[in-house]
Amino acid sequence: MIKRHPENPLISPCDVKPSQPDFEVVCAFNAGVARYKDEVILLVRVAEVPKNDNPEVVLVPIYSSREGKLVVREFDRTDSSIDFTDSRFVRTQEQQFLTSISHLRLARSRDGIRFSIDESPAIFPENQYEEYGIEDARITKIDDTYYINYCGTADLGITTLLASTTDFETFERHGVMFCPDNKDVEIFPGKINGKYYALHRPTSAEYKHRSMWIAESPDLLCWGNHRHFMSPREGFWDDGRVGGSAVPFRIEQGWLEIYHGAGKDNRYCLGALLLDAEEPWKILGRSEKPILEPETDYELEGFFGNVVFNNGVLFEDGMVKIYYGAADTHVAYAEISLDEVLAGLRQTGESTC
Amino acid sequence: MIKRHPENPLISPCDVKPSQPDFEVVCAFNAGVARYKDEVILLVRVAEVPKNDNPEVVLVPIYSSREGKLVVREFDRTDSSIDFTDSRFVRTQEQQFLTSISHLRLARSRDGIRFSIDESPAIFPENQYEEYGIEDARITKIDDTYYINYCGTADLGITTLLASTTDFETFERHGVMFCPDNKDVEIFPGKINGKYYALHRPTSAEYKHRSMWIAESPDLLCWGNHRHFMSPREGFWDDGRVGGSAVPFRIEQGWLEIYHGAGKDNRYCLGALLLDAEEPWKILGRSEKPILEPETDYELEGFFGNVVFNNGVLFEDGMVKIYYGAADTHVAYAEISLDEVLAGLRQTGESTC
Repeated sequence: MIKRHPENPLISPCDVKPSQPDFEVVCAFNAGVARYKDEVILLVRVAEVPKNDNPEVVLVPIYSSREGKLVVREFDRTDSSIDFTDSRFVRTQEQQFLTSISHLRLARSRDGIRFSIDESPAIFPENQYEEYGIEDARITKIDDTYYINYCGTADLGITTLLASTTDFETFERHGVMFCPDNKDVEIFPGKINGKYYALHRPTSAEYKHRSMWIAESPDLLCWGNHRHFMSPREGFWDDGRVGGSAVPFRIEQGWLEIYHGAGKDNRYCLGALLLDAEEPWKILGRSEKPILEPETDYELEGFFGNVVFNNGVLFEDGMVKIYYGAADTHVAYAEISLDEVLAGLRQTGESTC
Repeated sequence: MIKRHPENPLISPCDVKPSQPDFEVVCAFNAGVARYKDEVILLVRVAEVPKNDNPEVVLVPIYSSREGKLVVREFDRTDSSIDFTDSRFVRTQEQQFLTSISHLRLARSRDGIRFSIDESPAIFPENQYEEYGIEDARITKIDDTYYINYCGTADLGITTLLASTTDFETFERHGVMFCPDNKDVEIFPGKINGKYYALHRPTSAEYKHRSMWIAESPDLLCWGNHRHFMSPREGFWDDGRVGGSAVPFRIEQGWLEIYHGAGKDNRYCLGALLLDAEEPWKILGRSEKPILEPETDYELEGFFGNVVFNNGVLFEDGMVKIYYGAADTHVAYAEISLDEVLAGLRQTGESTC
């Protein structure tokens, strides 16, 4: 059985200092994870909204790359040409905006449970691909460098960008790895037979597939030989959409990947994949049932309820240590033994690659 | 003034032998262009439909990658759960299909005007990315190799794939360069300061932008450092959408790129861009007015009327020789002097890259 930590959720919005005095933090979730020296490091996605005491307007925070600063746009709530029905969005005839803006905030812990959270952002929007925010970091350690990929959202679309650090104090940006729309990217930790690999989740505007793909790279920035990797699975818990979650880690039997899947009811759960060690596009096993599904109060209710979502795990002492986003609001923690994860896998044929 | 050839259209559907005895050719258009030895080579997009004398059904041709062959699916025209309103598509609740399937056919000519067309396909769908067809080749010569990129359409989405040839007799496939949805890719003919570059046109499912991007590559298969390149232009002929058309060619002043733009009325025209020689993401000039717009019968009426579309040009003797798709039905030809193209450019600021 997976074991949630009794102190869950570990991080809540009220634990995080806003990045601006006139903003408030509404979500602290979907953290990238790494072990650095004797600490567990989280790069938490922190979503903020401008404080607003005027019920007649909806405020939209945008990083204006032209002006080089955060701006707040005001929309008249009574304007019938604007769609406010989903509280996460403002949709005009021409354009779609987000009502919150996210950045990445660093949190550190010696015991992996009690985190001290930086007072200011680690990575904040700063270019035209990040105007609506930065979301969902994954951290891959290769040699002594930690590569961080994250989503940039903007009117230009949803891209995945690459940054790196060696000390979690300074971060270097490397540009856009995957062009719109693409998210849920996990870079494997090191070359396999001379090539880097990553899982990713492109979205077709014309066709409805929400599937995972795999790509290869010589240098971590340029990606190609894209191959379809895994689709939603009819008749299972992940029949609606699937995407990669954690950076894969190496076990004796191959690569273990924690992924997320949603049913057609939009209930997000976590499962596992076992991939071939040398040919990671080959899927050897897939969780018959979720290893984690929304059950507790903090998973069922929040900014977007009925969601557990993962951006990274630690594999230590035979345990898979899962830092996960709960209801798009909190960071929570659960752990499960590798043996149990492997026992729950259903053998699959090879992937369609 | 641009000069259309009096023998236009040069290639029509009736000139092309179907690839299967029970199919008919409905469109022969959007050809990639290269000069090879003493011939002009076109890789024509040939769209075919299954012959159908039963008005009660709509037939959908699919290359089944699982079965390794072409199959024809039948849809009941009276089924009210299926959307047949756009004759190019069949849309069920779950899936979207195309009513025609395209492949690439080779045509060759000594004078550049009278073409002999191969009796069988040069590149035909053969994998899961090409199940609904292969579209819109571009040909880039680098050293002695001709690189061919083309769109694959499938339920998985619209990808751009790479192939190559040295003789236009055998073709080698290299895999997917750009994942869904992405089209209108033009590879620059050679490295610039150590990197390959390509223009491309990703589509955001979430946001509405239909813009051109530029990417770089070490090896032509893996692409990254994606940067937004050019948007539709309010108040001009290209205020609806833009995409690259011809493989760029080098002139004294930099790179010349023929692109297509459509207004909000979906009228497709061609224009030109002048790009910086060393930093091709910098746009120095952009056609104030189209250099070619739909005017003649064969451009105004056809499978999709009011369209001129281009996939490649030859630049010879100071002339830009444009092989273009007319009304998504024919291949036609027009030429214009480089001087005139340059005179029609409007200076722009640098691009937003």
